[in-house]
Amino acid sequence: MKIAVFPGSFDPITKGHEDIIKRGTSLFDKIIIGIGTNTAKKYLFTIEERIQWIKATFADNEKIEVAQYNGLTVDFCKKMKADYILRGLRSSADYSYEAPIGQMNKSLDKQIETIYLLTSPELAAINSTIVRDIIINGGDASQFVPSAIQQNLLK
Amino acid sequence: MKIAVFPGSFDPITKGHEDIIKRGTSLFDKIIIGIGTNTAKKYLFTIEERIQWIKATFADNEKIEVAQYNGLTVDFCKKMKADYILRGLRSSADYSYEAPIGQMNKSLDKQIETIYLLTSPELAAINSTIVRDIIINGGDASQFVPSAIQQNLLK
Amino acid sequence: MKIAVFPGSFDPITKGHEDIIKRGTSLFDKIIIGIGTNTAKKYLFTIEERIQWIKATFADNEKIEVAQYNGLTVDFCKKMKADYILRGLRSSADYSYEAPIGQMNKSLDKQIETIYLLTSPELAAINSTIVRDIIINGGDASQFVPSAIQQNLLK
Amino acid sequence: MKIAVFPGSFDPITKGHEDIIKRGTSLFDKIIIGIGTNTAKKYLFTIEERIQWIKATFADNEKIEVAQYNGLTVDFCKKMKADYILRGLRSSADYSYEAPIGQMNKSLDKQIETIYLLTSPELAAINSTIVRDIIINGGDASQFVPSAIQQNLLK
Amino acid sequence: MKIAVFPGSFDPITKGHEDIIKRGTSLFDKIIIGIGTNTAKKYLFTIEERIQWIKATFADNEKIEVAQYNGLTVDFCKKMKADYILRGLRSSADYSYEAPIGQMNKSLDKQIETIYLLTSPELAAINSTIVRDIIINGGDASQFVPSAIQQNLLK
Amino acid sequence: MKIAVFPGSFDPITKGHEDIIKRGTSLFDKIIIGIGTNTAKKYLFTIEERIQWIKATFADNEKIEVAQYNGLTVDFCKKMKADYILRGLRSSADYSYEAPIGQMNKSLDKQIETIYLLTSPELAAINSTIVRDIIINGGDASQFVPSAIQQNLLK
Repeated sequence: MKIAVFPGSFDPITKGHEDIIKRGTSLFDKIIIGIGTNTAKKYLFTIEERIQWIKATFADNEKIEVAQYNGLTVDFCKKMKADYILRGLRSSADYSYEAPIGQMNKSLDKQIETIYLLTSPELAAINSTIVRDIIINGGDASQFVPSAIQQNLLK
Repeated sequence: MKIAVFPGSFDPITKGHEDIIKRGTSLFDKIIIGIGTNTAKKYLFTIEERIQWIKATFADNEKIEVAQYNGLTVDFCKKMKADYILRGLRSSADYSYEAPIGQMNKSLDKQIETIYLLTSPELAAINSTIVRDIIINGGDASQFVPSAIQQNLLK
Repeated sequence: MKIAVFPGSFDPITKGHEDIIKRGTSLFDKIIIGIGTNTAKKYLFTIEERIQWIKATFADNEKIEVAQYNGLTVDFCKKMKADYILRGLRSSADYSYEAPIGQMNKSLDKQIETIYLLTSPELAAINSTIVRDIIINGGDASQFVPSAIQQNLLK
Repeated sequence: MKIAVFPGSFDPITKGHEDIIKRGTSLFDKIIIGIGTNTAKKYLFTIEERIQWIKATFADNEKIEVAQYNGLTVDFCKKMKADYILRGLRSSADYSYEAPIGQMNKSLDKQIETIYLLTSPELAAINSTIVRDIIINGGDASQFVPSAIQQNLLK
Repeated sequence: MKIAVFPGSFDPITKGHEDIIKRGTSLFDKIIIGIGTNTAKKYLFTIEERIQWIKATFADNEKIEVAQYNGLTVDFCKKMKADYILRGLRSSADYSYEAPIGQMNKSLDKQIETIYLLTSPELAAINSTIVRDIIINGGDASQFVPSAIQQNLLK
Repeated sequence: MKIAVFPGSFDPITKGHEDIIKRGTSLFDKIIIGIGTNTAKKYLFTIEERIQWIKATFADNEKIEVAQYNGLTVDFCKKMKADYILRGLRSSADYSYEAPIGQMNKSLDKQIETIYLLTSPELAAINSTIVRDIIINGGDASQFVPSAIQQNLLK
């Protein structure tokens, strides 16, 4: 059984995340969306909201689960019996951010392989930071999030 | 009438900003320098200082105005009747930072087009973060800011 | 009167070119598509085909013209009384290719400013080299070229 | 059954290719190394040498096959009943080269997903162009190719 | 006498730093590791720990010294009679971060030249931020730091 | 005695090369400009012209020599008793091109270290390919080459 973890903070989940996770289900038997919690970081949305929105987004997909974790991503993978980490790449800047994390994770645990898919081009400009910025500034970010949760972000 | 907004925090305005804005006046009938205010961010210089320095820099240019704004840049553009956003590109890292913002702004308002000019090579290393760093560390950053305000940054 | 040259080899014109040129018409009074001819380079399509396809693509747009040129782009601009060069940016790799050309053109003629727009995300992966590769390998590249000329590339 | 094509010209196969392909076997039931043949391109090694070296490299791995193809990679995938293309990423420059190819392949055939792995860091500087350059200039490139074929490149 | 400063925060020193500094001793008569102190920044390790670990790492190398400094790096160089700054490059993202700093330092003091070496590939993914992250999350980061201090980071 | 090789094809030498080589003389006792000759490549200028122009550029600098070589750069270094290769970096694209070459050279000969300097910003857009392009197209490229040889490129 091939299990992958898709780690992130999902503050909030975007259409970009949704795209990679859905496409990833062709490769894996199970994808566990892992919401990493960093006590030093401030989030815009509560962990409950973030979990609920991910559940709503993938409600009809039995292969996709969601869980919260503390600590290292590779330790969470081991606990979940996942041999893979799944990530999306939107741009060369994204690659530059992701590559050292992937290499370091491999150094920490040789068994865990990170698999990358290209984000669909029409979604490649979406990132959670800009989405939060739009929301904080009173804009309508609903077009950037999964349809199941768009009404939550409408003003 | 072609109006562009040049958004930023201008903390402080640099010769790089000055270069792009002056060259932009050949394209536009009016350029409004928009000082975006982010309540979560700490600035080194007060909004009054930043406005005054911009005014001093472009005192002899009737096409250039300055205004402060809160909220989304695209909403400020609409309020100012500006159909364009003007930005400078100094490096591929700059491109990587600017491109998703430009694409997201286009998604938020199809009418607003972001126009990019290349910063003149001899000014391409200047960025406000390093300029602030020099000032905080007691250095002389006057060579990196417009001549009209150099005496303000001299120690 | 603001005139821009959009230089390239257009072998063939793609939806990416079409996107930038159409959006550029909001900024300029006239855009001259300049087909640069490099005797050392082999083209897949004849100059006649390339001109005809560009004409078909912009048949209903009076602001857009097409012309062939030899020699330097800045010399062609002067001859055409164009003060601007228009280019699209698809990625940071594109930026890295375009930036030295833009800077060198500025060094050759201080009067000529290159203006960059971001290619729409859903078209950003299209480039003429891959399009030619698809055609040479017997594939159907029609979805990547302007609708006016799609039947020309169908097999 | 999950089948992937790993396309390339393998002129010659390097330790970088070997690394990605071996690690890819954890994900796929079969990996077909596809040697694309471009009549316009000159190769340093014959197709027979390149095939033989790939066979020697993966002689003890039943999941890995090798085949030559002409035409589009996506057409070769269809013929081989492969739903995946496997590629390695060594650097952000590599990403910039690979991303438009991956996106265009997806546009040509929605069923085919390209999967990327990061090349192991100690192998990330190896590329076939530099390896060929070393060989042409009389150097010893054996440390950069799979151990099964090192004696073939020794001078 | 050729003296170089290798500036950084070394929170903690990594094998990547060690690699560049050791290789740098072939070029310079003395290398002063300068621990820059930024009062606005929070460090994971105390200045005493960071100094002690650097001393332990280079205990047998008489060319290498360590010192703490406040203020601008170029001012520290002048005080130390160093005409060179030494830095490592791990990736193009690293280059993009380092280049404006190097150019600005040159603008501040024409006498000071920054010299760059490529970090050895197998160490190129290591960065202090990820190392701290591993430590904070209870992981074992000892493989990423110089052997002289590995026991300090073991849990 | 510290000897460095500055390799390239210098077709023609530019102000960018001149900048790096002159600044490199502070670090090295001798810099040998090595003109690599690749029989598969066509040059615009003869080897005699290229050598003569380099000699004219550095006529008053006893530390700088010029020599032609075939074969690998590391073999040329050994023959010249040079432990260093000197290169300039103009942009992140330049870094991406140079880094694998530097790493491969290090793999071929552990004794040889490549040292990088940043090209001065006002010269960073100059590259020999664009300079040749300007010359071939009848333009005046004299501002991009060392003053000693400017009259050679004037039309």
